[in-house]
Order: sequence, then C-alpha cells, then structure tokens
Amino acid sequence: MAEASVKPTPLLKDELDIVIPTIRNLDFLEMWRPFFEQYHLIIVQDGDPSKTIKVPEGFDYELYNRNDINRILGPKASCISFKDSACRCFGYMVSKKKYIYTIDDDCFVAKDPSNKDINALEQHIKNLLSPATPNFFNTLYDPYREGADFVRGYPFSLREGVPTAVSHGLWLNIPDYDAPTQLVKPRERNSRYVDAVLTIPKGTLFPMCGMNLGFNRELIGPAMYFGLMGDGQPIGRYDDMWAGWCVKVICDHMGWGVKTGLPYIWHSKASNPFTNLRKEYKGIFWQEDLIPFFQSVVLPKECTTVQKCYIELSKLVKEKLGPIDPYFVKLSEAMVTWIEAWDELNPAGDASKSDRRRKASF
Amino acid sequence: MAEASVKPTPLLKDELDIVIPTIRNLDFLEMWRPFFEQYHLIIVQDGDPSKTIKVPEGFDYELYNRNDINRILGPKASCISFKDSACRCFGYMVSKKKYIYTIDDDCFVAKDPSNKDINALEQHIKNLLSPATPNFFNTLYDPYREGADFVRGYPFSLREGVPTAVSHGLWLNIPDYDAPTQLVKPRERNSRYVDAVLTIPKGTLFPMCGMNLGFNRELIGPAMYFGLMGDGQPIGRYDDMWAGWCVKVICDHMGWGVKTGLPYIWHSKASNPFTNLRKEYKGIFWQEDLIPFFQSVVLPKECTTVQKCYIELSKLVKEKLGPIDPYFVKLSEAMVTWIEAWDELNPAGDASKSDRRRKASF
Repeated sequence: MAEASVKPTPLLKDELDIVIPTIRNLDFLEMWRPFFEQYHLIIVQDGDPSKTIKVPEGFDYELYNRNDINRILGPKASCISFKDSACRCFGYMVSKKKYIYTIDDDCFVAKDPSNKDINALEQHIKNLLSPATPNFFNTLYDPYREGADFVRGYPFSLREGVPTAVSHGLWLNIPDYDAPTQLVKPRERNSRYVDAVLTIPKGTLFPMCGMNLGFNRELIGPAMYFGLMGDGQPIGRYDDMWAGWCVKVICDHMGWGVKTGLPYIWHSKASNPFTNLRKEYKGIFWQEDLIPFFQSVVLPKECTTVQKCYIELSKLVKEKLGPIDPYFVKLSEAMVTWIEAWDELNPAGDASKSDRRRKASF
Repeated sequence: MAEASVKPTPLLKDELDIVIPTIRNLDFLEMWRPFFEQYHLIIVQDGDPSKTIKVPEGFDYELYNRNDINRILGPKASCISFKDSACRCFGYMVSKKKYIYTIDDDCFVAKDPSNKDINALEQHIKNLLSPATPNFFNTLYDPYREGADFVRGYPFSLREGVPTAVSHGLWLNIPDYDAPTQLVKPRERNSRYVDAVLTIPKGTLFPMCGMNLGFNRELIGPAMYFGLMGDGQPIGRYDDMWAGWCVKVICDHMGWGVKTGLPYIWHSKASNPFTNLRKEYKGIFWQEDLIPFFQSVVLPKECTTVQKCYIELSKLVKEKLGPIDPYFVKLSEAMVTWIEAWDELNPAGDASKSDRRRKASF
C-alpha cells in the first residue's frame, strides 16, 4: 500500500471513464494495469447475462449486463444493441464523467519505435485537451505538439483552434479491415508507426473505429450512439462507422474538431472474415447511399445543442434513408429513443447531482 | 562512361523536368547528383542577368535569366516576378514535360530514420503516379502504399481514387515558418519524421510550400502561377501560398487530388526573419480575407479546363479582392497574362511538336 500511495496521479483521473464491451473474462486488463489501474472502468457485458465476467483484482469498475440495461432503461433499452459491441454506448450513457475512453478486449499495449510501451490513454487525453484545427490544414500535422507549430501561410486568426471532441487512435498488427479486404489480404499486418496526430478537416467524413477511441462526453456524448446492430438486426460492424458519421457532421456544425492518428494499440486477433462478411454485406451496399447522405446533411442554425442536432439528423435519416430499407426507419426511431434515454439519465444542469439522484433511484 | 551506361534508368527520366530558381552557383546539386543527374534541369536565374551561375559538371540543363524571360515573353514577361523565387514558374511554362519537380537551392538530401539518404524525387514520382483520395479520409493514410489499404467503412465506390495533380513534400531541420513564428522560435528545428503520405480532402485549403514540390504539369500546370512578388510588388513569400490556394480550388473542381507528407528534404538555412517580416506583413493581413475568399469560390460547370478555371478565378479575384487593395487588380490581370503566355508557349495538341516550333522561333 505504501507503494501505491506514491504513484503519481494520472491525467484526468477523476474525469474519465474507460468503457469496455465484452463477453469474456477481462484478462487483457493485466497488460494495461500500469495505465488503467487508477481510472474507473465501466464494463458492458454483452450476451448471456447469467455468465460471470472475471475482472482482474485491483481495478475499480462497475459492470452492466443485459438485465441491468433492461432494468435501468425499461422499454427504452430497445435502443441498445445486443450481441454486438455496439452495446458499449450504454456505458457512455451511464457515465457521469467529462471524458470517455473505449477499448476492445482484444487490444493490447503497443510499442513505439524505441520499443517503449505506449500509454494510449495518456495520448488520447493530450489529444482531447489540446485544440483541433478543422478549418485549414497544417502540413506539419498537430501544431500544438512540442517541437511543431503552424507553418507559413496558416491564417493567424485560425491558430487558436477549436475544442477537440474526438480522439481516434489507430492499430498496429491487425489493421481494421472490412471482410472483403480481410479475405483478399489475410496476411496483411500494419507495422507502420506514423508519428502524427491530425485534425480531420471540416466537411470530410472518415471511418471511425470504436476499438481505440477517446471523446469529450460533455461535448459530443449524446451523438455517440452506436446504432442498432447484432441480434435481430440486418447488419453488424457498422456501429462505430454510423456513430462516426453522425458525430462528424455534428462536430462540423458545432465547430468542434475530430483528431486521428496517435496513439496506437496492438490489435491482437483478426475476427473471422466469413462471419464478418455476413454481418457487413448489407452495410457495404447501403454505405454507397449513406456517404452521399451524410455529405449532404446541412443542420439548421436552430440546432444549438447536440441533442437538437441529433434529433434533426434522425428526421433526415427517416426521410432520406427510410426509402432504402425499413431498417433505417427503425434506426431513426432508435436514435430518438437514445436521446430520450440519455436525457433521462443525464438531466441538464449539475452532472454530479443528477448522478446521485440517478443512483439513488435504481 | 562504362559505369554510366549501367546506371538504371530512373522513373519518368524523359517525362520530368527539375525546376530550380536561384541567384547563386548551384553547388547544392553535388549532393543531389545520384538522384538528379539523369534528369533535365530548368534553371531560372533570378536577379542580375549579367552574373554567371555555375552548374556542376555532368548535369543536363537549360538556364534562363531575366533577359531570356523578357525576350521569350515580350510584354507578357510582366507576369513573371523578379527578385523573388516566384520567378520559378517561368520554368513550368517553358518545360514541355508531363511532370515537374521544383526544389530550392538551400535544400539538401535528408536521411530517413534508418539513416538512409532519401530519394525525394522518387517519392514524389510515386505520389504522382498513384491515385489520390480526396473524397473520404483513410485513417491508415495512403491506401495505395505497400502494406496499407482502405480501412473498414471506406466506401468501395471511392477506392479507385482520382488522378493526383500535386505532391507536396516536407522539410526536416528548418521548418517553413512565417516571420513572426521564426522570431518567436528562432531555435525550433523539425526532427520528426512522419512516415506518411495523405490526400488533402476536397474542400480543404492548405499552405503549399514551393521548396520541395512535384506536380503533374499536364493536368494542373496552367494554375501553378506563383503570382506577382518581389521587385516592385507590395508582398513576398506568398507566391507558393497563392499558387496552392488557386491549385487546390481548381483540383477540387476538376476532381483531382493533392497529396502531402513524404518525401522530406533537409532545409539547411533559415532566411532572415526581419527581411521576411517586411515581405510578409501585408500578406498576413490580406490573408485573413484571402482564405474566406478561396473557401467560398465555386467554379461554374462550364469551366472544363484548367485555363477556363483560372480565367474565371482571375475575374473573381478582381471583383472580390480588388476592393481590398489595387494590388489584387494588378494580380488578376497578371493571372490573365500568365494564361495567355502559357497558351502561346504551349499550343493545344501535340506537345512535342509545339516544343520544336517554339524553340525554332526564339
């Protein structure tokens, strides 16, 4: 215990929750112990709720299984996916912290080129605490990093930057490929460490992966909905993509930034490409309409909160994507349910007070 | 000579010119000999035309001084800047090759992290010969690079990419900072090697530096005008920026890509920040209007060639920027003169034939 007492307090220790969706024992946390042990974990147990998930000793956590989700949300639990890692967004909703880091349980600590263990969480926090630059591209990447700055020709009025809402980290070893690419390139591994963080420009969409992701929950939380995937749904593996497209459109509207690049985690195991193809194939078709849709979305000026933006977006989804497949009508309704559930668990105003109220009422 | 005969032919040997603006002897070429020796050089001598510029032996080159420019262009020579490296664009105009690489004479060969000399030109050629992806962001950077691909969620219909018009390379050692940043951070050096090439997304402007730049002259050449800078003009050091903003807007309209990142060169010497401040200060003000202007430019559908786009842009410059300062009226007229001179030296149709005609008429 004497040893523990001299540990330095990590950044944002009391302002960040780590959200982990899982169906298995969380042995992977052993490797993350030096970096995660002082933070609070929110574990969202997917699948059979009667199964017991073992969490290594010494971690501070709360765990929710499907029964908990149903109990807490009641009929609104329908918006939380089952048998799909999309269920993780329930953790975002029950958290009361300002920041979230979410990671998959097949992700391990990666090493930088000097062979040092990468503290992924610390890098995400740095990304989230420094501004973003979505309005003009800086060719030397993150201008706020030590040893870097804005280059000649970068407008001075834009150098203050904007708040960063999302920090999207990358993966060494198994790249995040779709099923067709997995099938075509079964042996491809990512060994390239690109030492950069950059802001994804305003107006540009990107494929957001939920494997290694940090965000400012207070800013963008209500838009971090991972949609309807998995059990009873026609698609899977588009949960994080869906969230990313919604989030990016809303960040662009609100004037916030999305960063990608560092940190890397070590992605240990490729999922089964045949299973993935079954989950993805409708998404692969639909995506060809989804991208032009999201590229064309213009949110009205009246949308001054993320909730208002998201409700507006849900209407556009029903109207423009509904004709493609009834799934999108269902999804648009789930988007509304999500916001209702979010607002119920997160009443406007004093977050810590509402936290206590909520806990007392369970 | 036996040795020379076994040298492998470098990529695009007969399809690329290296353009170098200079006021001094080109000793810096010694270091580039292994990479440049088999290419043709176009040297644009700035300043006093009576001075003799020494070029190391063994290089194949043509050299133009101010007298040559005046003789070749006649009254249209007014569009070519004097006493400013913006004069380099004359080299783009007289070239008849498909590709251009331009480099400053204070740029040396950089080393990669494994301490190997970087063949900057070869990397630019790779960038130019592979497609670009301006319509959607790929989080693992250049998807066409060996060991990389498009990640999950990248629309399949966009994976063919678009032609690459520009390859913008970076700088180790002295970063390309403006005068205020140079003054504030006199000792800052760039030592970060970021192992990535990426496409600057459609709709996003960037600060294009002319120090280490490759482009497809056949595609975008007529828009690579470096403006009116230096002698008799109220600003300097915005030549490449101006070209970059025009080029990016036109590439976005035409559906072509602009890449930035690798390769690095070693930038040896910072220019004088006090001199730079004098050259830049009007640009620093004006830029605050220029960026919103370029961000708002919409070129009409009728603009189906770069020339038409550029003439349209010149009209918008006169109309929208003219009220800021008479300089922009002058610049807009120079933009038209540039296109007239370009078309005169580069008649549509058979490039090699027009090349011969032009040479005969001098």
